[in-house]
Amino acid sequence: MSTLESRIHAAVSRVRDQWRGTRFIDGLEPGPQGTAALLDVARIYRANRLEIGRMRLLSGRAVAGLFFDPSLRTHTSMEVATGRLGAHFVHLQGGQGTWGMEFADNVVMNGTAAEHIREAAPVLSTYADVLAVRAFPKGPNRDETVIRGFAAHAGAPLMNLESALSHPCQGLADQLTLCDLGGGSFKGRKVCLTWAPHPKPLPQAVPLSVLRAAVLGGADLHIANPEGFDLDPEEVERARSFCGDTGARLTLTRDPDAAAQGALAVYAKGWGGNSHEEHADRVAGLGHWTVGDARMESATAFLHCLPVRRNVIVTDSVLDGPKSRVIPQAANREPVQAAVLLSWML
Amino acid sequence: MSTLESRIHAAVSRVRDQWRGTRFIDGLEPGPQGTAALLDVARIYRANRLEIGRMRLLSGRAVAGLFFDPSLRTHTSMEVATGRLGAHFVHLQGGQGTWGMEFADNVVMNGTAAEHIREAAPVLSTYADVLAVRAFPKGPNRDETVIRGFAAHAGAPLMNLESALSHPCQGLADQLTLCDLGGGSFKGRKVCLTWAPHPKPLPQAVPLSVLRAAVLGGADLHIANPEGFDLDPEEVERARSFCGDTGARLTLTRDPDAAAQGALAVYAKGWGGNSHEEHADRVAGLGHWTVGDARMESATAFLHCLPVRRNVIVTDSVLDGPKSRVIPQAANREPVQAAVLLSWML
Amino acid sequence: MSTLESRIHAAVSRVRDQWRGTRFIDGLEPGPQGTAALLDVARIYRANRLEIGRMRLLSGRAVAGLFFDPSLRTHTSMEVATGRLGAHFVHLQGGQGTWGMEFADNVVMNGTAAEHIREAAPVLSTYADVLAVRAFPKGPNRDETVIRGFAAHAGAPLMNLESALSHPCQGLADQLTLCDLGGGSFKGRKVCLTWAPHPKPLPQAVPLSVLRAAVLGGADLHIANPEGFDLDPEEVERARSFCGDTGARLTLTRDPDAAAQGALAVYAKGWGGNSHEEHADRVAGLGHWTVGDARMESATAFLHCLPVRRNVIVTDSVLDGPKSRVIPQAANREPVQAAVLLSWML
Repeated sequence: MSTLESRIHAAVSRVRDQWRGTRFIDGLEPGPQGTAALLDVARIYRANRLEIGRMRLLSGRAVAGLFFDPSLRTHTSMEVATGRLGAHFVHLQGGQGTWGMEFADNVVMNGTAAEHIREAAPVLSTYADVLAVRAFPKGPNRDETVIRGFAAHAGAPLMNLESALSHPCQGLADQLTLCDLGGGSFKGRKVCLTWAPHPKPLPQAVPLSVLRAAVLGGADLHIANPEGFDLDPEEVERARSFCGDTGARLTLTRDPDAAAQGALAVYAKGWGGNSHEEHADRVAGLGHWTVGDARMESATAFLHCLPVRRNVIVTDSVLDGPKSRVIPQAANREPVQAAVLLSWML
Repeated sequence: MSTLESRIHAAVSRVRDQWRGTRFIDGLEPGPQGTAALLDVARIYRANRLEIGRMRLLSGRAVAGLFFDPSLRTHTSMEVATGRLGAHFVHLQGGQGTWGMEFADNVVMNGTAAEHIREAAPVLSTYADVLAVRAFPKGPNRDETVIRGFAAHAGAPLMNLESALSHPCQGLADQLTLCDLGGGSFKGRKVCLTWAPHPKPLPQAVPLSVLRAAVLGGADLHIANPEGFDLDPEEVERARSFCGDTGARLTLTRDPDAAAQGALAVYAKGWGGNSHEEHADRVAGLGHWTVGDARMESATAFLHCLPVRRNVIVTDSVLDGPKSRVIPQAANREPVQAAVLLSWML
Repeated sequence: MSTLESRIHAAVSRVRDQWRGTRFIDGLEPGPQGTAALLDVARIYRANRLEIGRMRLLSGRAVAGLFFDPSLRTHTSMEVATGRLGAHFVHLQGGQGTWGMEFADNVVMNGTAAEHIREAAPVLSTYADVLAVRAFPKGPNRDETVIRGFAAHAGAPLMNLESALSHPCQGLADQLTLCDLGGGSFKGRKVCLTWAPHPKPLPQAVPLSVLRAAVLGGADLHIANPEGFDLDPEEVERARSFCGDTGARLTLTRDPDAAAQGALAVYAKGWGGNSHEEHADRVAGLGHWTVGDARMESATAFLHCLPVRRNVIVTDSVLDGPKSRVIPQAANREPVQAAVLLSWML
């Protein structure tokens, strides 16, 4: 076994010492120590991607990715990570070339859905070593029917590729990016998560995952959003409960300039509030929340999960300027997902 | 060469002693001995899946899977079997991202179809070592235009992934499942195939494949269905012609309770009759054909090819109960398909 | 290293001596010598496909293929070439399961497009080692927005899988086919490119690529088309500028019989003229441009890029007759694409 291969095995062992779970749904599952160990695996992968690709460490393994909603980064980075590790990735597009699926129990299935999650999840678990599922809610609500259905019925390890409330792979990649910005760690560093205008009332999966990522890494997180766009209080409280362990601090504010002031990173994202109907009207008057050069003046880096609406969320000037780190941030998706796959299948 | 690899080569050789064909269309092609040999390969694959996956036995090979209709199990199990064996699987979705296809001869192609099967099949055969095609008929008829077109014009070996009259990979997997239930063989054992209600007049591909599977394995098959839903008489006679060789017996009945009495397996499936139009009306009065606990009382196992409509085909109680074997039955798709791929490409 | 592997490395080195570029957009990029060297790599691949497949020369590499339009040959041959070389191919279908994409600069993105090429191309370039993109224009025009957008913003090497004006992989395969027909070279040999009727005013990507292929290989090219269907003059002049280097000659004519007379190959293709609206009317009176046995009488071979409309572009009699080489022509797509991939990633 090569030195590099030994290092990978050792790093994966350290993950398993902290986390033996087989569900990666909201990203809090590995806890602070397990997350830190995953990030170490990701760093080794990132620094040696081609050489590791030649090792085919997960040869003979299979990952099934089921997408009920569009994807560019998540699909590509999951499939590339899987393929580089030597495993096979099966891409399934929900509703296109697959059967309609039923998630409710005790149903007489004489409508359009031909397949029940009670069969689909266990059957896919017999073929694949890992399942990965993306299913957005319809509107900014807490509906996690699909991912919860898979979690309840899948025998195989399950990775959430974005649900109503969570995008844990994005959160893990964001931790890696924040660590890069902070010189290895962002513990105690100020991070700003700012709401920004978007024509649609998007779900809160990404901002909640940023919140969890910041808390797991011990950041001094400042969340700025207009009235009516507060993050889900239940999820905020759940994340806050980790603050004691990690030393993270959490400040909620209506002032985006104060939140951005001196921050290691300004992370912008649009999300919906409580009132779905009036979203467009509300957003029309909130153009000053678009991140521009002035807001970035004393901050180190601009982050966004992508895809990003230019000159709505953030100006071209910021996005094409020297503080933008959105491309390396997106690039970090592949190594963190490789880390989770290695932890489950090596 | 490892012991395991030698065992695989020897088992594949035994298949080839019985069957040198390159078409797996209705599942009868390998004959009883060839089928038994394929099942042996499948058992070796199933018991050593991960170790075999690391061997990459079919490295450098390619399989093209062309799906004109939805698929979950078939797509996933074919792609996973191909990938685990080290070959590459190309998934093509007919009508989505591919050209409309013409199958008739002597046609002036100035309409919507841009591509003729006379080019598509030979061209795909130059890229891929094996073609696999799924194309359902529109309605419960004998229309096998697509698979027959590929069979006529493909230079590469061809696997049918379900056509109007045949689902041979399902049939092969069902034989493996029935062998498992019967302690290695189901020769002489009573098997019940029962019609069950379904809102749509589905094609008879699966029940006809169960029939062929039962006949190839020498079962005492009892087929129960209401009047007007008899299986295609031509196909029934063709399958019956194998009974002399294998010792299979065939009983057709209108009494599902008698058919299920003491059976090793009750295999339920909905299918259409002769009258497409009146299907919903006919089925409305046939609710007593839904398989429930009473019908299963003296039977060993419940089987269905999936996807299954809960509380229409079968009750939750049976499907979630101890006699249901539908998940291991679906799991058997991967090893039998791997067996066919190995037999053609090793 | 095996003898075969050494031969591949040597042949790839000869490509790199001539061509270090990372864009294969119109097919002229490698120049005559680079193209000849690529064809040598393709011939080695073609003659040793399975053995090379076992070598997994590009293990650990990834190719992302983004298709905004339908594909059968291009998708399959690209994915198979990638897979056989041991790399992983990610198939992305634009508009199906991906985000709408914006290509214009300085846009306020509050409409339907969620993702800008300025992020999409660099992000995909971080995951994949090579990008491959297909995007047709809407109508017979010079709109190359998509491929030009990727060329401007992708950090990874970029292969054009057909745009408005170019289908360079087809052109490279056509050179290999013409070389095969000419006994190793088609320098100085008469090649006929003839317009043929088609119900739609197709873009000129293929005929322009045939023109470039013929010029790069030094052919005596005769292009026949009716008035109003002349090839794009700017592109014709650009290709003509290579004639001095390669000894190619170019004759434009309205007489398809004269053009086909004694030709090594008659290459038929339908394309649109300047007037999109009147296409159907114009074509209605041009049935004598359909290639039949009489036109082929003194020619050696019939070629077409496929898919081909039978009895519109060419008669069944020619297509099913002994002079048709359309299947080996299509087969040549895989080795030439493998050659480009090897040149970029080996």
